[in-house]
Amino acid sequence: MPALSEVIAALEALWPPGQAEQWDAVGTVCGDTGNPEARVERVLFAVDPVQEVVDEAVRLGADLLVTHHPLYLRGTTTVAASTFKGRVVHTLIRNGIALHVAHTNADRADPGVSDALAGALGLRVTAPLVPDTDDPAGRRGLGRICELDEPVTLAAFAERAASRLPATAAGIRVAGDPEREVRTVAVCGGSGDSLFDVVRAAGADVYVTADLRHHPASEAQQQAAMPTGGGPALLDAAHWATEWPWTEQAAAQLDEISDRHGWNLRTHVSRTVTDPWTAHVASSSANPPPATGAGDTDTPGAPR
Amino acid sequence: MPALSEVIAALEALWPPGQAEQWDAVGTVCGDTGNPEARVERVLFAVDPVQEVVDEAVRLGADLLVTHHPLYLRGTTTVAASTFKGRVVHTLIRNGIALHVAHTNADRADPGVSDALAGALGLRVTAPLVPDTDDPAGRRGLGRICELDEPVTLAAFAERAASRLPATAAGIRVAGDPEREVRTVAVCGGSGDSLFDVVRAAGADVYVTADLRHHPASEAQQQAAMPTGGGPALLDAAHWATEWPWTEQAAAQLDEISDRHGWNLRTHVSRTVTDPWTAHVASSSANPPPATGAGDTDTPGAPR
Amino acid sequence: MPALSEVIAALEALWPPGQAEQWDAVGTVCGDTGNPEARVERVLFAVDPVQEVVDEAVRLGADLLVTHHPLYLRGTTTVAASTFKGRVVHTLIRNGIALHVAHTNADRADPGVSDALAGALGLRVTAPLVPDTDDPAGRRGLGRICELDEPVTLAAFAERAASRLPATAAGIRVAGDPEREVRTVAVCGGSGDSLFDVVRAAGADVYVTADLRHHPASEAQQQAAMPTGGGPALLDAAHWATEWPWTEQAAAQLDEISDRHGWNLRTHVSRTVTDPWTAHVASSSANPPPATGAGDTDTPGAPR
Amino acid sequence: MPALSEVIAALEALWPPGQAEQWDAVGTVCGDTGNPEARVERVLFAVDPVQEVVDEAVRLGADLLVTHHPLYLRGTTTVAASTFKGRVVHTLIRNGIALHVAHTNADRADPGVSDALAGALGLRVTAPLVPDTDDPAGRRGLGRICELDEPVTLAAFAERAASRLPATAAGIRVAGDPEREVRTVAVCGGSGDSLFDVVRAAGADVYVTADLRHHPASEAQQQAAMPTGGGPALLDAAHWATEWPWTEQAAAQLDEISDRHGWNLRTHVSRTVTDPWTAHVASSSANPPPATGAGDTDTPGAPR
Amino acid sequence: MPALSEVIAALEALWPPGQAEQWDAVGTVCGDTGNPEARVERVLFAVDPVQEVVDEAVRLGADLLVTHHPLYLRGTTTVAASTFKGRVVHTLIRNGIALHVAHTNADRADPGVSDALAGALGLRVTAPLVPDTDDPAGRRGLGRICELDEPVTLAAFAERAASRLPATAAGIRVAGDPEREVRTVAVCGGSGDSLFDVVRAAGADVYVTADLRHHPASEAQQQAAMPTGGGPALLDAAHWATEWPWTEQAAAQLDEISDRHGWNLRTHVSRTVTDPWTAHVASSSANPPPATGAGDTDTPGAPR
Amino acid sequence: MPALSEVIAALEALWPPGQAEQWDAVGTVCGDTGNPEARVERVLFAVDPVQEVVDEAVRLGADLLVTHHPLYLRGTTTVAASTFKGRVVHTLIRNGIALHVAHTNADRADPGVSDALAGALGLRVTAPLVPDTDDPAGRRGLGRICELDEPVTLAAFAERAASRLPATAAGIRVAGDPEREVRTVAVCGGSGDSLFDVVRAAGADVYVTADLRHHPASEAQQQAAMPTGGGPALLDAAHWATEWPWTEQAAAQLDEISDRHGWNLRTHVSRTVTDPWTAHVASSSANPPPATGAGDTDTPGAPR
Repeated sequence: MPALSEVIAALEALWPPGQAEQWDAVGTVCGDTGNPEARVERVLFAVDPVQEVVDEAVRLGADLLVTHHPLYLRGTTTVAASTFKGRVVHTLIRNGIALHVAHTNADRADPGVSDALAGALGLRVTAPLVPDTDDPAGRRGLGRICELDEPVTLAAFAERAASRLPATAAGIRVAGDPEREVRTVAVCGGSGDSLFDVVRAAGADVYVTADLRHHPASEAQQQAAMPTGGGPALLDAAHWATEWPWTEQAAAQLDEISDRHGWNLRTHVSRTVTDPWTAHVASSSANPPPATGAGDTDTPGAPR
Repeated sequence: MPALSEVIAALEALWPPGQAEQWDAVGTVCGDTGNPEARVERVLFAVDPVQEVVDEAVRLGADLLVTHHPLYLRGTTTVAASTFKGRVVHTLIRNGIALHVAHTNADRADPGVSDALAGALGLRVTAPLVPDTDDPAGRRGLGRICELDEPVTLAAFAERAASRLPATAAGIRVAGDPEREVRTVAVCGGSGDSLFDVVRAAGADVYVTADLRHHPASEAQQQAAMPTGGGPALLDAAHWATEWPWTEQAAAQLDEISDRHGWNLRTHVSRTVTDPWTAHVASSSANPPPATGAGDTDTPGAPR
Repeated sequence: MPALSEVIAALEALWPPGQAEQWDAVGTVCGDTGNPEARVERVLFAVDPVQEVVDEAVRLGADLLVTHHPLYLRGTTTVAASTFKGRVVHTLIRNGIALHVAHTNADRADPGVSDALAGALGLRVTAPLVPDTDDPAGRRGLGRICELDEPVTLAAFAERAASRLPATAAGIRVAGDPEREVRTVAVCGGSGDSLFDVVRAAGADVYVTADLRHHPASEAQQQAAMPTGGGPALLDAAHWATEWPWTEQAAAQLDEISDRHGWNLRTHVSRTVTDPWTAHVASSSANPPPATGAGDTDTPGAPR
Repeated sequence: MPALSEVIAALEALWPPGQAEQWDAVGTVCGDTGNPEARVERVLFAVDPVQEVVDEAVRLGADLLVTHHPLYLRGTTTVAASTFKGRVVHTLIRNGIALHVAHTNADRADPGVSDALAGALGLRVTAPLVPDTDDPAGRRGLGRICELDEPVTLAAFAERAASRLPATAAGIRVAGDPEREVRTVAVCGGSGDSLFDVVRAAGADVYVTADLRHHPASEAQQQAAMPTGGGPALLDAAHWATEWPWTEQAAAQLDEISDRHGWNLRTHVSRTVTDPWTAHVASSSANPPPATGAGDTDTPGAPR
Repeated sequence: MPALSEVIAALEALWPPGQAEQWDAVGTVCGDTGNPEARVERVLFAVDPVQEVVDEAVRLGADLLVTHHPLYLRGTTTVAASTFKGRVVHTLIRNGIALHVAHTNADRADPGVSDALAGALGLRVTAPLVPDTDDPAGRRGLGRICELDEPVTLAAFAERAASRLPATAAGIRVAGDPEREVRTVAVCGGSGDSLFDVVRAAGADVYVTADLRHHPASEAQQQAAMPTGGGPALLDAAHWATEWPWTEQAAAQLDEISDRHGWNLRTHVSRTVTDPWTAHVASSSANPPPATGAGDTDTPGAPR
Repeated sequence: MPALSEVIAALEALWPPGQAEQWDAVGTVCGDTGNPEARVERVLFAVDPVQEVVDEAVRLGADLLVTHHPLYLRGTTTVAASTFKGRVVHTLIRNGIALHVAHTNADRADPGVSDALAGALGLRVTAPLVPDTDDPAGRRGLGRICELDEPVTLAAFAERAASRLPATAAGIRVAGDPEREVRTVAVCGGSGDSLFDVVRAAGADVYVTADLRHHPASEAQQQAAMPTGGGPALLDAAHWATEWPWTEQAAAQLDEISDRHGWNLRTHVSRTVTDPWTAHVASSSANPPPATGAGDTDTPGAPR
């Protein structure tokens, strides 16, 4: 059984903390890393360090939990168990489980979060959307530009995404002409609304990401509709679903290291869906009625 | 036919610009307001000042477009028609159509955007979520706390919302136990993630708003799941759908003023759906497989 | 007749928007630049995009107005015609006139605003005052250092400026010994009070600029009067007058391009004086009486 | 002979330092205020603490110099005599002369700098432009609104100003219709461009101040020219000339105090003109030629 | 045995978290406060939440540690045990010990940290140095002004402090004339260099505080030496020593509450000296030699 | 006798002002540097520009005072003699004494302040703690890393410091195990708490600096006590005592220059102790009693 410090060192080699964004909070959050007696036998990978996942780690007997999202992105001055994050800390420490976070350093790694997303969608990656300036190989960076081997319609591509990404209640939202031909695909696991400009510059036909809100999505669509030119269609999946493929990829990376060192680690991937949305209901309203020529607007109070 | 300046004065009495948030950009954005010759016969109300809506105003022969969202929330130094917002300005001016915006001043008005949303959902409003400190009547402010006459389950309430809000492709996302009994409802038209704390303090059973992202929604759900207590279930509808009821309410308010002054205005409500999402696809993935006791996590590479 | 987009491209080649200061707002402000049908036959050049100039463009039948000053240096959220800048926008769009601005990018160009000013004053330019670091030729940058072929007195140089710069009601203010010999001249079209330090370092005998206020001018003169050393005399002309020579230079540049492409453009230079000062009145006060030895100060209330 | 500390106390009662703006630097700048032996016999009042004025104080044998402008508005970390302000400090200390500054506290006092300016112009003060909120009498504050007993034309009013303000080389600049009738006058000694909005709200026919630059003056004139409404004509005098009347007023105030206490002070008012501009030259250019109908613009290169 | 939540509520009533400074981080930092099963039998009070103190709490079998200093004054994103603060968190949680902090809320309370310090020195408190504006009784606030019943010399007062404050290796530093008579004493437990101005305004003869550095202490002494007036002598004790008396006071307050409720709590006060300085060595240098008239300065290299 | 400007030029060559920190205020603060008649015969070097030192300069007949600490680190808007710094300015100017400051430029120079400190302690300097990036020789920068020829115990090293640094009332505070072996020593004249991280990274056994406060010192000691590793012991001497060795070094440097130029300067080093602390009293308290096994904590009110 390897020491905790050895496993942490392996994780930091895969996703160097120094490659995270400055505002990010990555690395080891909890656990007895300085204690040479601390050993690791089981490791659980997950997207979110929430109580359900920590309880799963306890049930599994895991010694180490590796998550994509930080427990405390902004600094805390308390870990009292009356807060839900403090309760996570108490559960971890009482059960001797360490927590390690690889967030934007995993986003930008080679392979990274968006490589796993592209892989899940069956896409061929050609380059990062925002390449790291210090990577001569040109493979590290935020987001990925990808190609489909055969062009398909936007509608068909959305069906493909729905069948290949892990299932969530919320499903996938699409913006654009269903018949539009799609060949070049930009992907960014997690919240991608800050990358619209580079996505457009990359000439993507569709952009797959998460957490798009009304104003950025509306402005992207207005821009796309300009006569002078384009801009991508949009696919908005569940944030969790776009990042979950990374947990399988990461577990496989650690397995390979474990084999190489003869560590005999047992790695697990959490299948708990931590997307907060638990149901989706389609609109059943007849309101507003569909536009029908001259009748596409009307006076309230008038009979409809 | 009233002068443009008279109609604008009526709109500013309904939604005083001084009651908007400091960061907001409300009031008259375009049009010949200083010209005493400028007259108004037709008025169109809409949520978004986008090209489709402006084209609708042109087709209708409207003299004035009233929208909830600002055209320029942040200041611009150009209105060149090569930008999609500049194209809106050019279309408006060439067709002699004025544009007036009532945004956070309409949110906080009595009645306001969230009153219209509550009305559409058949709820009885009891108070604002964040009351304006300078309103002795206690009716103005952001969001609304409401009561249902009869408690229903969360699932039934979600069905009600789906059948009463205007239809959108994206539908409604729900977070919480479908059997949870719902009686007190907090509503906030548009993006409401900044009001979680007051919603929780108000003891709401469910919160209806829009544009919720992974982290705020996830943290709200983690908080709600604490043994020491609650927090609301969540309903996330299309941003546009939560604000559209206000356009009908606003048109009716202006109709009433028109009748009182004998203006003979013709008011219209746009039925163009400007929610950017044009399709929704449900997940059809078998990935990750449902948790089955000990098998709820597994090792990648192992046979599944 | 060239397309509007072709003419704009020519202007942007002369004065690349990327060479403007970060705080500046240059480029195309108004007009149908994305429309391939939009054509240009007449172009008017002016310093200020004010209503009188826009009315002149309408009378001329111009398709394009090019000004030095931005219409909106700070972003606006409204172009309502009740504001004087919104009235400009409405007039431009109703009359199909585009507006393009070249401000600090024209200041720093080769040739730029201060080259035109130097030319009007009959000076030989030797270098920029603040050279652009990325111009190997050393010709671009803010302000210019110049030489007179023959030294003259400050009084004579001021007379020369008064006879060569376009006439304004305000005339020219001078600070310094009228007999001082002047050979090296620093010039900066428009407000130049931020360049005092480089002007002094350049060893200029006189500095020609505009908009100098009491404190910077007073401090420059106090510094100049130090026994240990110098500093320039000052000539403060009307802001408009120091920048107007650029409009002739710019029109000639576009003429040359038009000839080269066979565009047959008709370029015009506005002769409307847009300096705000419409009259100047010389002091006729006997107050305070001239200093006369011991009597150069006195006690109020005492007979004078 | 009073102690220096007694005279300073009297000055601070006239212009309490606590009533200065937060960014200002008023009070005693130099001198042996803590020394009970320090006495005052002669006091010199001036606008600017410049070397010429300090030399005048030395020649007079003054013990105290009182100026309107601070020596160091921004803090200094050196008083070395190689700087022109350090030279002032060395001259003052070597000659035993104290320096006291009353700047924005004198602007806002009752009577204040703008009262003296109004008095010099023969105007009847009705109220401050920006009243101090803590003055129940409503007399303290920035700027003054005044009335003329008989309305006069703008041209006549400008002549009056030229004959009543102390003479400077720069004279007075005027913006507006010379025949405009003037009755309500706003005055603000020194740089007044931050008060345009309150001047307009006060309904002033003309605004007398100093240091106006192109953009604020141009925008004020564009606003004044709007069909919907007015705004003042402008008179821009030398900064020094608008504040010099205060030195006479201040000397008389201290004389009165001296008489009351039997101090037998000798007060003097500096007549040194410290406006930096030493000459004015009227435009003698024929450029650009006056507008003559169709010929009001032309093509460069064409014969003129 | 009371519930943890009951004891925390009692502590928050003594030192309301809302009365802490905005930058401070007080309240419960660790522990199972939301768990109704969590009980408290033993409480340890200490100044610093350092490992030695936490180990003492473990040895004692304490359920709750109450400290004056925050564990995390600035927010943390990790509690990994490889950091010394994370090691504290791990030790606390593994041993089921809660941590509660009362810092600036205890400083400003009635009685507060400086009351305990005054009591230890045998002083009679007359008022806070910086009274809380919302305390009508005038007893809450930062620091305390105190009186000695009989005036003593500064030297005698320093001896008193050395014999009454808890012993530390560093002892006490004194600045001022040893024969100066001391009657009014200002005290501020912990770092007090921000209160010099109010101490001086209060007319204190001596100021007892901690953590004074060269520049503030030097400036205070220079100010005190001005012929025009005073300012206090200074006593700089160990930071820990000035705050330790509060731990006894606080324990007695909780004992009294425990008796009132019949809780039967066992309260303890830590006697571990957590001042970081473990030794003090007096200067034994002959360098620089004492001043002896003309010889008080010399030329390096000259024989001494 | 050299001109003042020549001597200043020599000082600026030794400690170039451009090598000071951006926030610092170095160079000539007072004196007639621009006057070619100003001559220098005697120069006094000292740490602090306080009144006692200036009086010493007057008594000596010095023409120039050179200090390490700035008179005005933050800018001043007054030099009135009622402030203690203004009194210094008045004394200097009345007595014709110039003041020159070399602060962080002297800290970072080669040799610099910490070289002098290392020399006083008999240490061999190996490198700066924070090397200047633009010094190819690697000798300039903040602080110094040093070696002892023979390792000694911390207790012995503290005795050495006490016997070699100039004597002050406050003496030296020590943190760490007295038996710890010390070989590598980090030194930083003046306040050194910002350099803890580089000191630790340099592997120093002890850190000699000044002005350490409770929290940084406590955190350094907690870090040093971590099982995983070290961190230095601490020696906190009087701020003045750590910088005084530089005055001797600086005087010798100027002597050498004087000899080279045949200036015949007379340089002096002030022996006035300007450390603000004038006495030290050791703790004589029996409070708290020493820990004795189980009795190391107790209940207040219980008999002791």
